[in-house]
Amino acid sequence: MYVILVYDAAPKRGVKILKYLRTKLNWVQNSVFEGEVTEKSFEEIKSGLKTIINTEKDSVIYYTFDSKNYFERGILGVEKNEISSFL
Amino acid sequence: MYVILVYDAAPKRGVKILKYLRTKLNWVQNSVFEGEVTEKSFEEIKSGLKTIINTEKDSVIYYTFDSKNYFERGILGVEKNEISSFL
Repeated sequence: MYVILVYDAAPKRGVKILKYLRTKLNWVQNSVFEGEVTEKSFEEIKSGLKTIINTEKDSVIYYTFDSKNYFERGILGVEKNEISSFL
Repeated sequence: MYVILVYDAAPKRGVKILKYLRTKLNWVQNSVFEGEVTEKSFEEIKSGLKTIINTEKDSVIYYTFDSKNYFERGILGVEKNEISSFL
């Protein structure tokens, strides 16, 4: 499956989320990640995030797809990360 | 079509992008928007954004779908905006 994940957290936890997700998904920009993952792996990522975020204050939203063929990806301006090499 | 749009811009332009997109799409969190748009409307949004961003420094990434049925949306923590009412 393919996942797009965005988060909005207090700075201290935001840094932890960033470091954690960099080991699991591809960084896109700011607080946005993408990646191809197995369902099991994504369950582990969610579990990991739950140990980092404050569930009453922070927000992690994810969009999952059976395949990245279901969307088209476009950009205006600069590519912050050369993720296109993964896609 | 349905669009998920994320941006990463210098603060001054970020505020302008936020204000502009609030009139066009549904704010999700931080610098993330979603919405059902026509192709024509989305072309206008992209044109509008091009007048705001610095295309050598800022980044706007968008994912477009024929329908929002192609993805599942999940959340950990809080919903910053009650967009679920739109979905």
